[in-house]
Amino acid sequence: MSTFWDNRFAQRTQRMKGSAIRELLKFTEDPEVISFAGGMPAPDAFPTKEFTKACNQVLKTQSSQALQYGSTDGYLPLREMIARQSKRYGIEVTPENILITAGSQQALDLLGKIFINPGDHIVIENPTYVGALQALNAYGAEYIPVPTDDEGMVTSELEKSLRSSPKFIYVLPNFQNPTGVTLSFERRLQLIELSEKYGVPIIEDDPYGQLRFEGENLPAIEVLDSQMRAQDGCYSGNVIYTSTFSKTLSPGIRLAWVIAPTEVIQKLVLAKQGTDLHTATFNQMVAYEIGKDGFINEHVKYIRKIYKERRDVMLDTLAEHMPEGVKWTHPQGGLFLWLTLPECIDSRELLSEALKFKVAFVPGSSCFADGSHPNTMRLNFSYANPDLINEGIGRLANAIKQFIAKNNQS
Amino acid sequence: MSTFWDNRFAQRTQRMKGSAIRELLKFTEDPEVISFAGGMPAPDAFPTKEFTKACNQVLKTQSSQALQYGSTDGYLPLREMIARQSKRYGIEVTPENILITAGSQQALDLLGKIFINPGDHIVIENPTYVGALQALNAYGAEYIPVPTDDEGMVTSELEKSLRSSPKFIYVLPNFQNPTGVTLSFERRLQLIELSEKYGVPIIEDDPYGQLRFEGENLPAIEVLDSQMRAQDGCYSGNVIYTSTFSKTLSPGIRLAWVIAPTEVIQKLVLAKQGTDLHTATFNQMVAYEIGKDGFINEHVKYIRKIYKERRDVMLDTLAEHMPEGVKWTHPQGGLFLWLTLPECIDSRELLSEALKFKVAFVPGSSCFADGSHPNTMRLNFSYANPDLINEGIGRLANAIKQFIAKNNQS
Repeated sequence: MSTFWDNRFAQRTQRMKGSAIRELLKFTEDPEVISFAGGMPAPDAFPTKEFTKACNQVLKTQSSQALQYGSTDGYLPLREMIARQSKRYGIEVTPENILITAGSQQALDLLGKIFINPGDHIVIENPTYVGALQALNAYGAEYIPVPTDDEGMVTSELEKSLRSSPKFIYVLPNFQNPTGVTLSFERRLQLIELSEKYGVPIIEDDPYGQLRFEGENLPAIEVLDSQMRAQDGCYSGNVIYTSTFSKTLSPGIRLAWVIAPTEVIQKLVLAKQGTDLHTATFNQMVAYEIGKDGFINEHVKYIRKIYKERRDVMLDTLAEHMPEGVKWTHPQGGLFLWLTLPECIDSRELLSEALKFKVAFVPGSSCFADGSHPNTMRLNFSYANPDLINEGIGRLANAIKQFIAKNNQS
Repeated sequence: MSTFWDNRFAQRTQRMKGSAIRELLKFTEDPEVISFAGGMPAPDAFPTKEFTKACNQVLKTQSSQALQYGSTDGYLPLREMIARQSKRYGIEVTPENILITAGSQQALDLLGKIFINPGDHIVIENPTYVGALQALNAYGAEYIPVPTDDEGMVTSELEKSLRSSPKFIYVLPNFQNPTGVTLSFERRLQLIELSEKYGVPIIEDDPYGQLRFEGENLPAIEVLDSQMRAQDGCYSGNVIYTSTFSKTLSPGIRLAWVIAPTEVIQKLVLAKQGTDLHTATFNQMVAYEIGKDGFINEHVKYIRKIYKERRDVMLDTLAEHMPEGVKWTHPQGGLFLWLTLPECIDSRELLSEALKFKVAFVPGSSCFADGSHPNTMRLNFSYANPDLINEGIGRLANAIKQFIAKNNQS
């Protein structure tokens, strides 16, 4: 109808589409729907008591600073705390290597802003985090998807994609969103070697690394890269690492961070200055107050326990209820698992059916840059409690069975 | 030295430069420096007690929601509250016309993102808010500066700039940053008529409108535009309005909003989704809790009183100490006044001298798209208390006198 505005929007808006995930959040407003969509942490794991105490403490002793403008790079004590924490995982950095962002999503946006010229190629896992595609689309990224299997990105397929000089490789090595799969140790090494050989930086997005509830921790790509640099001075240190407080404290305070060489941090700071001046001072000081004495490490143990229980319930009920031909991943941490349906089923169509059964999920095709693989879906196991998971997977299995029966009729 | 990263940064980063304002903030860390740089509200006006009460209330009764992910458009009760508040100023909107952003700076970034193709022309006041230039530079904006005088943008000079089909007109009508000047009623009407005649949208940036401590309120451009639309159905309603809680509650919580036609809001929501998912839920709920019963309207009266006193002290001490040939504006609200030095003085050079006298300001040339007008400066009167303003303006006058004397010698 009205074209006054239509004619004025920038070209890049043509690639801005609502994500299926966010659209689905509206279904979760119906209290009868059991939602395995979204990527929400368990609200019962929010440390409300610690937040209350920290807010009171910060406002009592430092309100002039907490409620005032702050520096673009972030609150120094928080950056120091992140540097200390990172050291426990083998990442040796100073606060100058750290930028605080308004959630990991902003980290992806700012990385897109400083690196991507329209038409630049970006190597991604296939499937990948849908929010990364949204962030990078705005800067005109084109994607080179690399297949994944139960050990993550198939690095033997990576080399050919690096010959076209992509801007960077974007990878979620731990309990990947959406598949829940973890990149194996051998493939981490191969990824670094190839990135070094072709001079292509790696962006390591690690929101879930701390949420391993089974198996052994694998070193971050960032850590392996710096070890290889220490052994062989030629390595350039081209890994950019990002993580978040969204899964360990709260996503509602929008706090995450980027670890990168100072040159990259300086550019990110300039980009962030024009984007939002700085991340909320109050939130940074509250997070520091909560985390400064090691609370987060203790709290994460509790989160892991809850999520393990929920994953177990989901795996058990899937095994119990799902019809033949349905397969799923067995993640050792994180928030998601990935389900593959018989090829004849389009999970976008299935979703309408499932909503009649009052259960929701994310159709997997939204996580593929080319919208392929309609017979897949992402299931979240962190948000709903065990009873609801049990009930919800039962409903989902019924929806699938009915969908298959209908399809066979027609 | 290292060119690994230099070769990889996007072209747009060439226009990302640190703002003089932000660089200057580091001088204010020296407690002996009296800073008229920055644009910081008076910390003594932060409603710490109300923040404490609101944080406790929100965490006690709604922590599962406050610490969780939220919707991209913003917390509905807060948008409803903004709609109610806006009505008091004559702006009639529903929550569907409102997007919550992480500060006004993010509003400018998102507007740049949805409107600007590289090379697009944007009409600006000369001088204008340096942060707007930073936000829009990233999208490749080119500027058409329109001169300003004591009544704001000289609208008689505007028409020729509209003939080149600029994307929008960016204007700060009330107590403009940096000049402190207010756009007169007649020019507001002329601006709207011209924008309508040429079909060029107006972005009305209004962070200070509520901070008038003298003279009569002028209706917002948004309000005049909709009145003209009501009289004459042809008007298209092409004003986008943005304001903030930074100057009335706290800048450290990063909360602002955009009011626009729903088509524009929908595009902004898509852009924001890729940029940072949503604004911090906790901060939005706390701001709502503080503001829901009308506290902000009462509190603003107190802020106006403080700022009027500080402006008066600054005007008095300027009149008392400044040497001949120095002129300044007399703002009736807001946070800033604008000082013009004799033409032989470059305020960027003067700044080094002033810092020896332990006083800081913003060199005015940073607020001109072409870096011109070196003999100007922006002075902030909201942050320092009256005693410090008195002392600081004395120091500044001495620095100017010494600078002139040195120049005459050489």
